[in-house]
Amino acid sequence: MSDKPNPINETDDEARALARSLVDTTRYAALAVNEGDTGFPLVSRVAVSYGSDTGLFFCASDLSTHSQCLATDPRCSLLLGEPGKGDGLAHPRVTLVGSVDRIENSDPQRQSMRDIFLERHPKANLYVDFADFAFYRLLVDRALLNGGFGKAFHLDATDLEFLREWTKFG
Amino acid sequence: MSDKPNPINETDDEARALARSLVDTTRYAALAVNEGDTGFPLVSRVAVSYGSDTGLFFCASDLSTHSQCLATDPRCSLLLGEPGKGDGLAHPRVTLVGSVDRIENSDPQRQSMRDIFLERHPKANLYVDFADFAFYRLLVDRALLNGGFGKAFHLDATDLEFLREWTKFG
Repeated sequence: MSDKPNPINETDDEARALARSLVDTTRYAALAVNEGDTGFPLVSRVAVSYGSDTGLFFCASDLSTHSQCLATDPRCSLLLGEPGKGDGLAHPRVTLVGSVDRIENSDPQRQSMRDIFLERHPKANLYVDFADFAFYRLLVDRALLNGGFGKAFHLDATDLEFLREWTKFG
Repeated sequence: MSDKPNPINETDDEARALARSLVDTTRYAALAVNEGDTGFPLVSRVAVSYGSDTGLFFCASDLSTHSQCLATDPRCSLLLGEPGKGDGLAHPRVTLVGSVDRIENSDPQRQSMRDIFLERHPKANLYVDFADFAFYRLLVDRALLNGGFGKAFHLDATDLEFLREWTKFG
């Protein structure tokens, strides 16, 4: 690819703030996982939340295909940011790349995650305590930020400081 | 997983019609690809279109990470269907799983795809003819349909007849 122009901009404070804003506000994300037995990458929708004490996490049922894939291979990525109105590719979005950590019911942070999750997703009250549902925290490795045409950035764990100890190599 | 209940419903005409409706109307999809050198599944946003003579396709730049991943491994999946208002997990969405076929500029179908694409994405007129942009047709293997809670279905190539010859094993 060395004969092609490099479309990646140098990461600056504005890019870091945009990534943080997307994590702070997004309610639904597209989750990509590895389907181990076929090698296909599978994408599905999950409800996400973020708290400064909990990191970025989502809720999923053990019966879902994505949970079953993650049980075999915890590597994944999450796309945050909605297409919005007009040209959907002009709206910012960020791909957070990393691995998930399944939060057991006995985990002392589970209650805090539950509170934060229900604040952003009140209707999840219907299922969040079902035995087959669990929270999955993202341990972030890096991010690909796209702020619109010509506004692509690569963010590393240092740029994602607001995710603190939940960076994969933090 | 044999000790767990099976959450997949039997595929019926209503499920097939819902999948078709999502393909017919969706403007933006989340695309999952394999990042060959790391093994991570990456998800990003693409603009999609569908025509009965062209199948389902999207437009992407050779400079993008997803195009570079697809050049190495054409396996992917596309999530169609927006979260919408209220509870985003109550809105239908479908994951189409397959491989992509990159459409060369010399391909006789390219003009037809361009027309269909610009009808759904008028603003793509700005970039669709750039030298580094190309259309990618999805050769569909199967689909995972989620019509909302308790409404999960697995669709095979036969259920996706409206994608006709663009099923992977069709």
